[in-house]
Amino acid sequence: MIEKLPSFQHLLKILQKVPYLASKNLYRVATHFLDMSPEQVEQFCRALQLAHQRLIKCPQCCAWQAKDQKCLFCFNEKREHAIICVVETWQELLAIEKTGGYKGVYHVLEGVISPLEGIGPEHLTIKLLVARAPGVREIILAMNQTPEGEATSAYIAHQLQHTSVKISVLAQGVPVGSSLEFVDRLTVYKALAERRPF
Amino acid sequence: MIEKLPSFQHLLKILQKVPYLASKNLYRVATHFLDMSPEQVEQFCRALQLAHQRLIKCPQCCAWQAKDQKCLFCFNEKREHAIICVVETWQELLAIEKTGGYKGVYHVLEGVISPLEGIGPEHLTIKLLVARAPGVREIILAMNQTPEGEATSAYIAHQLQHTSVKISVLAQGVPVGSSLEFVDRLTVYKALAERRPF
Repeated sequence: MIEKLPSFQHLLKILQKVPYLASKNLYRVATHFLDMSPEQVEQFCRALQLAHQRLIKCPQCCAWQAKDQKCLFCFNEKREHAIICVVETWQELLAIEKTGGYKGVYHVLEGVISPLEGIGPEHLTIKLLVARAPGVREIILAMNQTPEGEATSAYIAHQLQHTSVKISVLAQGVPVGSSLEFVDRLTVYKALAERRPF
Repeated sequence: MIEKLPSFQHLLKILQKVPYLASKNLYRVATHFLDMSPEQVEQFCRALQLAHQRLIKCPQCCAWQAKDQKCLFCFNEKREHAIICVVETWQELLAIEKTGGYKGVYHVLEGVISPLEGIGPEHLTIKLLVARAPGVREIILAMNQTPEGEATSAYIAHQLQHTSVKISVLAQGVPVGSSLEFVDRLTVYKALAERRPF
């Protein structure tokens, strides 16, 4: 059926490349676009192209920044430049920013080491991070709590072992607001092992 | 943070309107677009605009058709025009087409009656369907098995009660390949009630 409507088929093919669009929803998203007014399609494309033209990655920390502005972190005098928080992607950076409790700067790795997906340390921004290390006091490894995240932390720590920089990781423990009953065993175990004085 | 990058914020706002993009994934999709090459962005927008320009809805059955071609169903001589299968959306039409077992034509309702969402019969293509009824032998109501779908079927059946057209609905029962153990009670009940001779 669809093969008789080549422009529909082409739209599906293009949408297929968008991550987090389950193939089950592809048709719905495609018809959503077709149901738009020409002005809305125009607006959508303009927003996409504009963002694409205006945003670049900071050459130092790899966070997104506006092309005509300086990096919001690296050139922010209110930030503490002696502390670098290393995150996997921009999304984790935003999650940490939302806490409002971190005043240091960042380093976006752009992924994690994942041999299964063919991602080695050379595909990440680890070299850039190592180059930044001499000037700083502390590097916080804020990777996600996954095997890949932990392996990446271990790799980075190894790369930094000959520097004097202090390396720290996020605390593991029971999430705020949770019942012990519903928290997984390993988390409870770690919370116990890393218990602190009241 | 994001408010300092207006073009990023605008992209998020535009993406928010796309259905089936969970807000949790918005940032990831946005960065996917930013990571594209300018050519890929261009290609994406072109596919979108092209599909939008080339595809229209058939004025009779409301299925998508190419602007420069005739409707694949209404103008297809190999189809049986005396049987109309009524579906909620284009996706259900494709699901039925995939079976390869239906040779009649279609009528796309463009939704279901849903008072909670403010969708009444006047928002659907029911009037168009009723106008088509005199010429046909059978109308199959192939709505999804939801309260809204069933209410819509009931409404349409009521609208057609003064015509001589035969109205049918999809069979309810145990899905092919399923174990009774894992099928919900109501489905098993309906399968029992509508049992047929072997």
